[in-house]
Amino acid sequence: MTKYDIVVLGSGPGGYVAAIRASHLGFKVAVIEKENLGGICLNWGCIPTKALLKSAHVFEQIKHAQEYGISIDTEPKVDFTKVIERSRGVASGMSKGIDFLMKKNKIDVIMGFGTLISENQIEVASQDEEKKIVEADHIILATGARSKELPSLPQDGKRVIGYREAMTLPQQPKSMIVVGSGAIGCEFANFYNAIGTKVTIVEFLPNIVPNEDIEVSKQLGRSFKKAGIKVMTKAAVQSVETTENGCIATISTKKGEEKIEAEVVLSAVGVTPNIENIGLENVGVTVEKNKVVVNDFYQTNIPSIYAIGDIVKGQALAHVASAEGIVCVEKIAGKSPRVINYNNIPGCTYTSPEVASVGLTEAKATELGHKIKVGKFPFSASGKASAANAKEGFVKLIFDEKYGELLGAHMIGANVTEMIGELVVGKDLEITAHELINAVHPHPTMNEAIMEAAAAAYDEVIHI
Amino acid sequence: MTKYDIVVLGSGPGGYVAAIRASHLGFKVAVIEKENLGGICLNWGCIPTKALLKSAHVFEQIKHAQEYGISIDTEPKVDFTKVIERSRGVASGMSKGIDFLMKKNKIDVIMGFGTLISENQIEVASQDEEKKIVEADHIILATGARSKELPSLPQDGKRVIGYREAMTLPQQPKSMIVVGSGAIGCEFANFYNAIGTKVTIVEFLPNIVPNEDIEVSKQLGRSFKKAGIKVMTKAAVQSVETTENGCIATISTKKGEEKIEAEVVLSAVGVTPNIENIGLENVGVTVEKNKVVVNDFYQTNIPSIYAIGDIVKGQALAHVASAEGIVCVEKIAGKSPRVINYNNIPGCTYTSPEVASVGLTEAKATELGHKIKVGKFPFSASGKASAANAKEGFVKLIFDEKYGELLGAHMIGANVTEMIGELVVGKDLEITAHELINAVHPHPTMNEAIMEAAAAAYDEVIHI
Repeated sequence: MTKYDIVVLGSGPGGYVAAIRASHLGFKVAVIEKENLGGICLNWGCIPTKALLKSAHVFEQIKHAQEYGISIDTEPKVDFTKVIERSRGVASGMSKGIDFLMKKNKIDVIMGFGTLISENQIEVASQDEEKKIVEADHIILATGARSKELPSLPQDGKRVIGYREAMTLPQQPKSMIVVGSGAIGCEFANFYNAIGTKVTIVEFLPNIVPNEDIEVSKQLGRSFKKAGIKVMTKAAVQSVETTENGCIATISTKKGEEKIEAEVVLSAVGVTPNIENIGLENVGVTVEKNKVVVNDFYQTNIPSIYAIGDIVKGQALAHVASAEGIVCVEKIAGKSPRVINYNNIPGCTYTSPEVASVGLTEAKATELGHKIKVGKFPFSASGKASAANAKEGFVKLIFDEKYGELLGAHMIGANVTEMIGELVVGKDLEITAHELINAVHPHPTMNEAIMEAAAAAYDEVIHI
Repeated sequence: MTKYDIVVLGSGPGGYVAAIRASHLGFKVAVIEKENLGGICLNWGCIPTKALLKSAHVFEQIKHAQEYGISIDTEPKVDFTKVIERSRGVASGMSKGIDFLMKKNKIDVIMGFGTLISENQIEVASQDEEKKIVEADHIILATGARSKELPSLPQDGKRVIGYREAMTLPQQPKSMIVVGSGAIGCEFANFYNAIGTKVTIVEFLPNIVPNEDIEVSKQLGRSFKKAGIKVMTKAAVQSVETTENGCIATISTKKGEEKIEAEVVLSAVGVTPNIENIGLENVGVTVEKNKVVVNDFYQTNIPSIYAIGDIVKGQALAHVASAEGIVCVEKIAGKSPRVINYNNIPGCTYTSPEVASVGLTEAKATELGHKIKVGKFPFSASGKASAANAKEGFVKLIFDEKYGELLGAHMIGANVTEMIGELVVGKDLEITAHELINAVHPHPTMNEAIMEAAAAAYDEVIHI
C-alpha cells in the first residue's frame, strides 16, 4: 500500500486544483473520485451549461439575423439531441483534460467511493474491485454538493428533475416549470425558453436572482418577461401531481392558489453538501449547520483532515473551492498563503443578459451602516453596446462616501461576466472611484461603462 | 457676439468630452464642428466599424450554426446594403446622442470650419452663413486626424480608397487589397473576408499588427490565413494601375515583384493630424514633427490655446483624446488632474479573434533592460472557451522579475477587448503577479486566463 503525503477526496474544482498545487509543491498526491474527474462543475455544472447556453445564444442571433443585414430564407431549427450532444462532448473533453493534468502532475487517480476510517485512512469502495485502504499524512475532503430536494418537490428524475437531468433530457419539453431563480434556475430557464420551450419560473422571494442587487434582479425580470418567460415571484410550489403527459403544479401566489401544467418541473432550489457516508463521524470531524467546520486554512478539528469547497462555510462556487484548495495546500506546505476574503468573491449568471457582481449590494451596504455613493451607467448610452446591439443592462457601483473605496459592483448586460474581473482585482486592491475613473479604458468597449459608473457616483459622468 | 470661457475646435471624442467636462465645471462652452458631431470616431471610425464587424460576426456564427446543433436549410446571405445601412444608422444614432448631450450640458454647437485668427478668436466659415468670429478665454484645438496618403498610393475614392469610403461602398467588392495591417486595416480585412470578399493584406513590416507583441501578431496572422485572408508581409505596394473593373497593384516582396488584381485597394497606412488651415501660424502655435507641442496639461506655447487628441504627442486613439480633454479642462478649472501615463494606454483591434494590449511587449521590456518573467495561458485550456467554441488565442503577461510588477499584457481571443480593463486598472495600481493570482476570478470565464497567465510566470499555473 502506497502512503501519500496528501489524499484528496473528490476531484471537482476544489479537489483537482488542490491536488495539482500539492504536486507543484513536491507532495506525493492521490485523488479519489466516485464518478467523473472534474466533479459536478465540469461534468454536470458550470461547463456543460455554458455549452447549452452558447447554442441558445447562437440560435437567438440567427433568429435576429435580419437586424444585422443577413437574410435566411428558411426557419432555423434547433436539433435538441445535437445541442445536448455538443454539451456532453465539451464536458467529456474537459474531463479528459483533467485526466491529462493528473498524469502530467503524477497524481494517482483512485476511482471509487471513499470513506474516512481513521485520521489518516480512507477506505475506497468501487464496483469492480475489492475495497482498498488509502493512507495519507493529510486528507483533504472536497466532496462538493448535490441538488437540494424540497419535501414538497421530491425528484423522480422524469417529471420532477434536478440540474443533471435538465442537461440530458431525451427530448426537448414543450413546457417547463423552473422552481427557484438562482443562477442555475435562471440559466436553464433562459436556455429552454430560447430554444422554444414554454417556461415558467416560480420564485419564493419577491425578485429573481434574489442574491443580486435589487436593480439587477428587476432588470433581469424585465428581460426575461420580454423574452417570453413567465416569471412568478412571491410564489411557492405546494405540490406536484404527475399525469400521463407531464405534471400539474399547485402554486401558492399572492393572489391565491394557481394550478400550472407543464411537461417537466425543474427543481433548482439550491444545493446541499455531500457530507453523508464519508465517515466524518468515524473520526469525529466537527459539523455545524450541515457544513464541516474549518479554520482559515481549511483544517478541521482533526489536524490531519482538511475540508474545502461546498462542504465548508463560504459561497458554494467552483472558483471559491479552487482558491480554498490552493490556500489549504500551500499552508500544509508551510507557505504563508493569504486568507481568502469572502467579501470579494464574484458571482456570475450566464443568462441573456448576463449578470455579474462582487461585494455589497446597495441594500446590504446601507444595512451595514455605510454612508455610500452610488453610480450607475446604462449600456443604452454605450457606443460599443449600440454597435453590438447589446443595449440592455447597466453597471452599478457602490462606493464608501468617505474615502471613495469600492464596496460593491453589480452588472447586467452582454459579456459582463468577462468584465467583472476588473472590479474583483480592483476591490482586492481597495480601489477608489477616482482610480477607476483615471484608468484610461479603451474605446469603444462596454467596459467603459465601469469608468462612467464610477464617474456618475461623483457627478463627473460624460455620456449621460 | 457671445464670449465663451472655453471654445473647443472639433467635436470628436477629444472635443466633445472636453466640452462636457468643462460644462460640469461651470464654464460657458462652445464647440465648433465642420461636419458631424462626434467626429471621425463616432461617424467614420470606432463605432460604425464595430457595427460592420458585428454583422460579420453574426454571419460567421450562422455559417457555423450546425456545430451548435442548429440547422438551416438554405444558405444565409449577406445583404451588403443593409449591413452598411445598419452601420450608418448606429453612427447617426450616436451622433444624435452627442447632440442631446450638448443641449443637456448647454454647450453651443457652431457648425463650420474654424481658423484661429488671434490668441482668443476663431473665425468660423460655413457654406450657408457669413463668416463669424467666436471669442473665448481658452481655446482647445481638437481637430483630429485623417487617413494618411502615401505618394505611391494616391486615393481616388473609387478604386483606391480610405477608411471612409471602405465603410460606405455602394456594393460589396469581389476582391480587395488592404495596404497596412494596423487596427484599421485588419478590421476591414476581417469584415470583408468574413462576408465573402477575397482579401489580400500587404504589410511592409515582418508581421501584421506590428505594434503588438510578436506572439500576438503571429497568432493573428495564423488566424487570418485560416480564415482565408492572403497575408503578405515584408511587402510594399509600388504602384496601382486602375483598370475598367478594378486595379492592378504592383507589390514588391521578398521574392521579387508581384502583380495582384483587385476590385478595390484600401489604403490603411495610418493617419495624419489635421493641423493645416486652422490658423496655427496666425498666432504662432509651435508645431514639431507634424504635432502641436503641448505641456503635460495640453497647453501650447500660447497660454490661452490648448491642443488634445490626434494632433498632439501620444497614441492617436479616441480614449486618449477623451482623457486628455478631461485633464486639460480640469487644469483650466484650477483642479489638480493626474498627468496621463502614456505607458498605460490600452489598444484594441476588433478582429476575430480580438486583440487587446497595454504596456510593454516582451521585446520592448527586454530592450529597455528589464529582467522579466513571462507567463502565457492559452484559451485552448479554458473551460469557458471550450464551451463557447472560442479556443483560439491566449493571454501573455510580462512582469518585472524583482518585484513582480506588471509591465505589459497582451491578449488575443474572443472578448479580450472587454477583459483588458482589468489589466489597465491593475497596471495603473502597479499590480504584481501574485495580486492577480490571489484575486479570485469567477469560473467559468475566459478572464480566468489572466490569473492563470500570472501563475504561469511563477510556475504556479493549474490548467496547463
